[in-house]
Amino acid sequence: MKILIIGGNGTIGKRVEEALAQRHEIIVAGRNSDTVRVDIQDEKSITEMFESVGKINACICTAGTGHYGPFYQMMQQHMMPGVMGKLMGQINLVLIGKEYLEPEGSFTLTSGIAAVHPARNGACVAMINGAINSFVLAAAQELRDDMRINVVSPGLVEDSRERYEHLFPGYNLVPMKKVVNAYILSVEGAVNGEILKVYS
Amino acid sequence: MKILIIGGNGTIGKRVEEALAQRHEIIVAGRNSDTVRVDIQDEKSITEMFESVGKINACICTAGTGHYGPFYQMMQQHMMPGVMGKLMGQINLVLIGKEYLEPEGSFTLTSGIAAVHPARNGACVAMINGAINSFVLAAAQELRDDMRINVVSPGLVEDSRERYEHLFPGYNLVPMKKVVNAYILSVEGAVNGEILKVYS
Repeated sequence: MKILIIGGNGTIGKRVEEALAQRHEIIVAGRNSDTVRVDIQDEKSITEMFESVGKINACICTAGTGHYGPFYQMMQQHMMPGVMGKLMGQINLVLIGKEYLEPEGSFTLTSGIAAVHPARNGACVAMINGAINSFVLAAAQELRDDMRINVVSPGLVEDSRERYEHLFPGYNLVPMKKVVNAYILSVEGAVNGEILKVYS
Repeated sequence: MKILIIGGNGTIGKRVEEALAQRHEIIVAGRNSDTVRVDIQDEKSITEMFESVGKINACICTAGTGHYGPFYQMMQQHMMPGVMGKLMGQINLVLIGKEYLEPEGSFTLTSGIAAVHPARNGACVAMINGAINSFVLAAAQELRDDMRINVVSPGLVEDSRERYEHLFPGYNLVPMKKVVNAYILSVEGAVNGEILKVYS
């Protein structure tokens, strides 16, 4: 398969790439990618990315972040980068990308545990993750030519312990291997319209 | 209680108003309201509304719609009015409105069945509804001064049969009384952080 990974230079994206590169052709795109540069906040940039990459069999997005911060200081201006990036960006990858996906191809988006178990300061991220989950339920019904779409919803990954653990007291760390497996299941398995929750 | 209903001139809003007006002071705001005009897509308009209304004990939003349309024609431009209205508008009602809510006051937002059971053509609305549900889970943890927040997630209401039933084949109609009761439960009950699902 020819697989496009957007956000392939992030903590999760790199490991997903390593795993899939053993048996597939991988193209990594991202804000700072050397191969294919893309700004998922920008529809035009997404279209240009797909045009340059050509037809693919799978599109994985591990890119996009949302605002974490005190609820009593939170305003729309803090939320909009995540709304236009992680939320509308991932949606645009599907709306635009479906024209570049081969029949039986798959999309795999990324949400997160906050959709159901938000941490303190995480109202923006919760909202974005909940939005992506529900979008995927709908999109799975609509995609034609046997295309599939799933979303991986990871908890706090072991590899992010140092960087993020203090923000998630009481959250169980998730083995990266389980997170990577969820992406593999989505790409190589037959599942469709699933919210692949990787947390406990 | 002094209760502000945004979208009080809509199908659901009117019935919620009727029910609550029996024992509370109701102020109805909306795009076309005679009393308090508000455009929930606009932070400034929301602030002006709260300034003009003053301190309240409950804020209910039944306003906001999202794009319904063919998935293969859907683009960001179709989704943004709903994203800035029903989604960010309701979030802004909370972020801004919490400063105007009395202690022990409540917010009641509105999502819908599409978050979990999207109909054909409903990817945009599914996404918005899922976002609101998850935002409410997070906001309920953050609100201080014993404030509460819930979201009513109605199915297709009996009163909307003629207008919308053809778009939702196989969806069971929900009695308006049950929908109104969910708003009453949120305002007068003790529930907090609940997604009040009114569908079967």
